[in-house]
Amino acid sequence: MAESARRARGGGGAARRAQRSAVSFETARFIERNIPNFEVLTEEALEIIEHNAETVLEEIGVNFPDNPGALQRWRDAGADLQGERVRIPRGLARKLCETAPSSFTQHARNPARNVEVGGRNLVLAPVYGPPFVRDAAGGRRYATMADFNKFVKLAYMSKWLHHSGGTVCEPTDIPVNKRHLDMLHAHMTLSDKPFMGSVTEPSRAQDSVDMCGVLFGEDFVQQNTVMTSLININSPMTFDDVMMGALEVYASNNQACIISPFIVGGAMAPVSVAGTLTQVLAETLAGIAYSQLVRKGAPVIMGAFVTSIDMNSGAPTFGTPEAAHITYGAGQLARRLNLPYRSAGSFCGSKLPDAQAAYETSNSLNMGLLAGVNFMLHACGWLEGGLVSSFEKFVMDADQLGTLHHLARGVEIDENAQAMDAIREVGPGGHYLGCAHTQANFKSAFWKSDLLDYKPFETWADEGARDTQALATARVEKLLGDYQQPEMDPGIREALDAFVAQRKAAEPDSFM
Amino acid sequence: MAESARRARGGGGAARRAQRSAVSFETARFIERNIPNFEVLTEEALEIIEHNAETVLEEIGVNFPDNPGALQRWRDAGADLQGERVRIPRGLARKLCETAPSSFTQHARNPARNVEVGGRNLVLAPVYGPPFVRDAAGGRRYATMADFNKFVKLAYMSKWLHHSGGTVCEPTDIPVNKRHLDMLHAHMTLSDKPFMGSVTEPSRAQDSVDMCGVLFGEDFVQQNTVMTSLININSPMTFDDVMMGALEVYASNNQACIISPFIVGGAMAPVSVAGTLTQVLAETLAGIAYSQLVRKGAPVIMGAFVTSIDMNSGAPTFGTPEAAHITYGAGQLARRLNLPYRSAGSFCGSKLPDAQAAYETSNSLNMGLLAGVNFMLHACGWLEGGLVSSFEKFVMDADQLGTLHHLARGVEIDENAQAMDAIREVGPGGHYLGCAHTQANFKSAFWKSDLLDYKPFETWADEGARDTQALATARVEKLLGDYQQPEMDPGIREALDAFVAQRKAAEPDSFM
Repeated sequence: MAESARRARGGGGAARRAQRSAVSFETARFIERNIPNFEVLTEEALEIIEHNAETVLEEIGVNFPDNPGALQRWRDAGADLQGERVRIPRGLARKLCETAPSSFTQHARNPARNVEVGGRNLVLAPVYGPPFVRDAAGGRRYATMADFNKFVKLAYMSKWLHHSGGTVCEPTDIPVNKRHLDMLHAHMTLSDKPFMGSVTEPSRAQDSVDMCGVLFGEDFVQQNTVMTSLININSPMTFDDVMMGALEVYASNNQACIISPFIVGGAMAPVSVAGTLTQVLAETLAGIAYSQLVRKGAPVIMGAFVTSIDMNSGAPTFGTPEAAHITYGAGQLARRLNLPYRSAGSFCGSKLPDAQAAYETSNSLNMGLLAGVNFMLHACGWLEGGLVSSFEKFVMDADQLGTLHHLARGVEIDENAQAMDAIREVGPGGHYLGCAHTQANFKSAFWKSDLLDYKPFETWADEGARDTQALATARVEKLLGDYQQPEMDPGIREALDAFVAQRKAAEPDSFM
Repeated sequence: MAESARRARGGGGAARRAQRSAVSFETARFIERNIPNFEVLTEEALEIIEHNAETVLEEIGVNFPDNPGALQRWRDAGADLQGERVRIPRGLARKLCETAPSSFTQHARNPARNVEVGGRNLVLAPVYGPPFVRDAAGGRRYATMADFNKFVKLAYMSKWLHHSGGTVCEPTDIPVNKRHLDMLHAHMTLSDKPFMGSVTEPSRAQDSVDMCGVLFGEDFVQQNTVMTSLININSPMTFDDVMMGALEVYASNNQACIISPFIVGGAMAPVSVAGTLTQVLAETLAGIAYSQLVRKGAPVIMGAFVTSIDMNSGAPTFGTPEAAHITYGAGQLARRLNLPYRSAGSFCGSKLPDAQAAYETSNSLNMGLLAGVNFMLHACGWLEGGLVSSFEKFVMDADQLGTLHHLARGVEIDENAQAMDAIREVGPGGHYLGCAHTQANFKSAFWKSDLLDYKPFETWADEGARDTQALATARVEKLLGDYQQPEMDPGIREALDAFVAQRKAAEPDSFM
């Protein structure tokens, strides 16, 4: 199987065909920022937090339960072990992190969709993980594989998404021990954008690597990064053996991991911003250092998934100012480690794709761009605290992602942008709509929504007085109707189908 | 009348009574930023734009039509005049702007509500100008004085609004030549927050000054700023005699004006960011310089109301990345002039308080905070491109303004914020909810919405599955039900009533 994959790539025909389809759907290149980062921590505050994080690692330590291999690696590296507790001498974790690359290329099967993760770039990937889906017609319900496929198609069709993501929703109608195969198959065949691997069992991470061997060729996978997968830290300071097992598979195969605390502030971290940042830094230092103990140079992303909490109900809250402070601050800490940074997303607590959802999401998306985030998971489609993938919100958020692309361009100052001829031509009391400069520049001057309504009130009323959700329902239908599957070498497709069939046949279904 | 007003202030009883009511409604103090400004223009770009703006003033000039007094002032100052065209020698306008104060206090009748405009402060004022109102029950309809009064009450009750604003909606049931009297009377009696004066005729500006004389005492008004009023420039580069007439009244009475281009990009200014900023700077330099020709030291705010345009329909668009670039850039230009800056707001094009409205508004509010805006007009309640004041959106946006207050606080780094004791106490795998640090800090740690829903799905569904608009309808009713009129000296109230009655009797109604 792998042989046929390599041959197909070598021929170049598939790549050329994919390239043609890429043009017709107009996927934007990942964002390269031409604007500064927004920073909220002073140099003094950064030094205090860094000092405190080392104190946490040295004096309190982190837990690696049920993982003798990990404990041995830490012992060999010079850490102090007591049971599953790993205490890391001051400076050691930071030193180990130095071998992680400051940026890396994640390859897509269509090379035009490759992404550069790190530096001043921002890669946008869709929502990850919800067990439910919602749309206006069907309401809220458990997600199925049919829903999953639709989200992969919507992500493929979205101009502003660079990445197909991973578990865009949980296909609950497929056995737990087999759904990763169907999910990967969908990302590989329904899209040609880069994607994420499974992390729910080390064996499923291995399946992900093996399927990439089929798609890209085994040698290509060993020499290049073709997956970025999500490794959550069980905050506070616990490195779960299942997640670490998946990390070990990916790192040893040169595949990228996001190593990310998952924190509801006040519950899994202190109720203060500086305290939470201290814990985030301690946790990511330990996790990234561990990835480098598995394989020096393995690509990683420093993650920070942090929300605040409603202290009355205990519910997580999104798009809040405290989450913003943490996201800005963690970006500063990541840059001082010279590592790619993951944070922010289309976060919201609302049950519906309504104004609450949009306020919260917009707060988080804007913050993510200005915080210097390099990889934004959940960039569209998240609803109800991550319990729901919303079809309408997916296309609503994806449209807003266009604003981030335009914001990131910064301000041009060349002679055309200065427009002095236009100001002279029009003069006091004149009108710019018809002037030469406007005619020459209007097409590219402004970001253009593919969704929002700017019609006069009367036209809008005549057309049914639709709110944003109703406009989004229509856009979901349109995109799914227009969808065309990207071409794929039939030999590779056959081999992928065979791999999935064979692995499914090898063990009984489990829904646990 | 003025005598009785002065006596009442001198006594101090009214102020003390007002202070008591201020506490019960918990109005936040204006925002004092402890975070940096976000800047998108390089030093080189700033210098080019400043050079070009001077070129515009010197070579193209600005128009002051139908205003011989203004032309005489400019001639005396050394400008080159041809008809109504005023060409201003390079450097002159900037030089004249130097006498404008870098910040000023706007006094409220309740001294606890005074605001400082300038520096690192941000003062939030509600929507201004819409002829229509909308609420869920009544739909979209022409605004009336009853609507106006409700908005003044909502602004008074809002914790995060520092200012009562001006024309919160146009009371179209009151004659055009008399509605300013009723509007000012409402701001003065239904609220004790600072407010804006009328600008629709110079005589109405004079009425505004005279009514303030009744409220504050004539001497107090001459020695202190008690109104901030909105003077729009008729872009490109035209200074309308009515607006300038109002400016002349206010400046000569030491009252503050926002001098603000009103620009739909691509129509009233070049279709590029740098070109628009050049025009904004040229226009505000000319307008502010003129205010200083009227009275040296008159308080002013440099304004920039700039939207982009949908080139297909010609409709203005809001919350766009190009508007953000201009708002960030204009902030940099204002700071180099050492002047207070007005921009941003709850801008949106949507017809409904839906997700589109919230995305667009949130984009603009966040940008306004980070751009260093000192006075944000339209900070809540704007709908449909400014045609509509929305009751629901007013309280939705006003709630979001709380996030700006918390964001502006920045990050604390003292020992309590570092929370090292909490991290030690909880340790790996623990839980922070019950720890001593959380118990001591949780009440003030996180911004708390007074509107948004964080309930579990089932609870929310049982309670009617309300969207944000429905939650807002309930909040509008609650606030209006809880409203209590702030106390006022009966002598002043009588004098205000008498002033309005007398001015109304003095001329026939006009609806033109």
